[in-house]
Amino acid sequence: MAERRQIITLLTDFGTADYFVGAMKGVILSLNPDVELVDISHNVPAYNIAAAGFTLRGYYNTFPPRTVHLVVVDPGVGSSRRPIIVMADKYTFVGPDNGIFSYVYAQEPDVRVIHITAEHYFRQPVSSTFHGRDLFAPVAAYLSKGVDWSKMGEEITDYVRFNIPQPKPAGDRLIRGHIIHIDRFGNCITNLSEKEISREQIAKGVKLVVQQREITSFYRYFAEAKQGELFAYLGSADLWEIAALRQSAAQLLQAKPGVEVYASRLTDYGN
Amino acid sequence: MAERRQIITLLTDFGTADYFVGAMKGVILSLNPDVELVDISHNVPAYNIAAAGFTLRGYYNTFPPRTVHLVVVDPGVGSSRRPIIVMADKYTFVGPDNGIFSYVYAQEPDVRVIHITAEHYFRQPVSSTFHGRDLFAPVAAYLSKGVDWSKMGEEITDYVRFNIPQPKPAGDRLIRGHIIHIDRFGNCITNLSEKEISREQIAKGVKLVVQQREITSFYRYFAEAKQGELFAYLGSADLWEIAALRQSAAQLLQAKPGVEVYASRLTDYGN
Amino acid sequence: MAERRQIITLLTDFGTADYFVGAMKGVILSLNPDVELVDISHNVPAYNIAAAGFTLRGYYNTFPPRTVHLVVVDPGVGSSRRPIIVMADKYTFVGPDNGIFSYVYAQEPDVRVIHITAEHYFRQPVSSTFHGRDLFAPVAAYLSKGVDWSKMGEEITDYVRFNIPQPKPAGDRLIRGHIIHIDRFGNCITNLSEKEISREQIAKGVKLVVQQREITSFYRYFAEAKQGELFAYLGSADLWEIAALRQSAAQLLQAKPGVEVYASRLTDYGN
Repeated sequence: MAERRQIITLLTDFGTADYFVGAMKGVILSLNPDVELVDISHNVPAYNIAAAGFTLRGYYNTFPPRTVHLVVVDPGVGSSRRPIIVMADKYTFVGPDNGIFSYVYAQEPDVRVIHITAEHYFRQPVSSTFHGRDLFAPVAAYLSKGVDWSKMGEEITDYVRFNIPQPKPAGDRLIRGHIIHIDRFGNCITNLSEKEISREQIAKGVKLVVQQREITSFYRYFAEAKQGELFAYLGSADLWEIAALRQSAAQLLQAKPGVEVYASRLTDYGN
Repeated sequence: MAERRQIITLLTDFGTADYFVGAMKGVILSLNPDVELVDISHNVPAYNIAAAGFTLRGYYNTFPPRTVHLVVVDPGVGSSRRPIIVMADKYTFVGPDNGIFSYVYAQEPDVRVIHITAEHYFRQPVSSTFHGRDLFAPVAAYLSKGVDWSKMGEEITDYVRFNIPQPKPAGDRLIRGHIIHIDRFGNCITNLSEKEISREQIAKGVKLVVQQREITSFYRYFAEAKQGELFAYLGSADLWEIAALRQSAAQLLQAKPGVEVYASRLTDYGN
Repeated sequence: MAERRQIITLLTDFGTADYFVGAMKGVILSLNPDVELVDISHNVPAYNIAAAGFTLRGYYNTFPPRTVHLVVVDPGVGSSRRPIIVMADKYTFVGPDNGIFSYVYAQEPDVRVIHITAEHYFRQPVSSTFHGRDLFAPVAAYLSKGVDWSKMGEEITDYVRFNIPQPKPAGDRLIRGHIIHIDRFGNCITNLSEKEISREQIAKGVKLVVQQREITSFYRYFAEAKQGELFAYLGSADLWEIAALRQSAAQLLQAKPGVEVYASRLTDYGN
């Protein structure tokens, strides 16, 4: 197709101690030797579809247009869960229809989703436990070579989406949000952005309450924080995060994804 | 040589926290800047030659012909163990002569093995502890550039092979096999394929006995299994594996490579 | 610029479970789709500038000239610590001015250091917590495309250097050195090279004393050692290392970077 080299990114929970990642790469390179493979991570927590979906949200749109993003976290492999292609404006996604692309559906104005059925493009025989190698890898390789996605299957509209928690007004308080991800440093990423808690509001005084702990320090960067202190900052995902200097905020708060975060004006609280 | 870009894959136990992998890559790219480096894994359990050999078995033949597979798990580095090149029909392998290529020898109809002696191709001075950087990496790089392997040393026939356990008939029972690998999910891979236990036999009733535990559930894919249940399935390596849904079967069975697996007809057991 | 493909290497402490590495790669490839990205490691111990600096020392000069080495271990991100480019004879380095390039300064005869200020080359808006994606990645990408470093900021001379411990004479004893790094096998790398302890001296009899333990075995390679024994060998970084066969010498010695190592002639000790 184009002259520029095509890119396929790889995100899986296969770990890096087995042959799984190697076999996927070999299958792709056998079909398209010119493609550029880019490892994102193979250490998504095992079977954690939500973590994979959030991770994908963080990198997919930094890549050049026409990149194919391959995402295989697939606890239902071999069952009736469908393999899909998601065509967005600039990017193509390949993976299982288990909600892993929920953030893509939420962010991309216009997507088309294809249920992959054209076995002609699969590696034969298709094992029932490793669609990463036998189905997703070859489909991604053919897409990267310019094969028309419409040949791969039929469009569907009932694809699986997660219930991504949405911030909600919360009575006297400003807003109720949720922790949606814990990163490897133990930072707690919330679903609250500057739209929900603006810098102006913070300047006037805001506190967050998570797991009965109050957080009143809002910093621009980590070096402002004091040892042992829980603080909030606007993270690189454009969401408010809760952290502790060189400690795991998630451990300090005993927090995990799904935990509620309340934001209140300091003055509302009778202080 | 050919116009298509050459591929070198990398499998090591060097881990990813040190300079070892980086130094190997730098040496290769300095000698052949056009080669495509493909990371398989650097997290093979330290010194575990058997695990590396099994991992290699799982990916090497998914790659395009003429790929050079570099494998460095090398507890005997610096000693008299020989560095070798293994030439198979479609692929070239480079690594230590410590049995790491045993599955290649078992699977490939025709191999030639070269004891690498041509110091001309080494990085000088050769350290006594890091042949990955100083010997294997440059040899792989020169091979990827088309240097004739016959210039690298002399052919040998007494190369080291593991004793790969072979399934054996076991009296009243169908067959005795072994667990040969534990993957990172704790799935136990046996050396039993459909040749030893066919789907027809399973349809009539088969049980596996491992560590005094009986396994009578044979499934096509994980989503069929019930929580807490040990079950068998034909894995992506075309071997029967024993697993437990979202649990480590190896832990449940206290199994490790070498443990025996007996297969019996259910009706033989007087049920 | 040149016809040969440019290389950017990546060393970070971002781990491999999040989107951080993926986002850096996407930003780089969007700006320079032809660049070759080479993963060194993303598992530098979190915030460990000294470990990152030592790791960099081990691989940077194995790469082809004109390689751009991107190193992001950046506990002070967002604070007043400066982003810098280090121009050495053959290589270009990009990262924070926190001492991470101290070994480069010590080894390279002639470096020029640029404080990066040209926001024109940054990804906008620049987050205050992820300069890897928003500042270092795009600067590295532009450098790899041949953009002149002198356009990126002003030269500085007060860049941050670690106090790299230097071996010192120690009275009756030969020399006092330090452990400067522990690798993932638990091997303890000292700052003592053959310049401080020559093979001739060892032939006459030398012992090392670390944490009250005496080490008198000097071997060429691991296979010479006996189980359970602490021994020294000249490692692949051209420094004397202390190891134990298939055990962590660091654990046996309860040693960490900074611990002192004394070398004495055996005969000095009245033996």
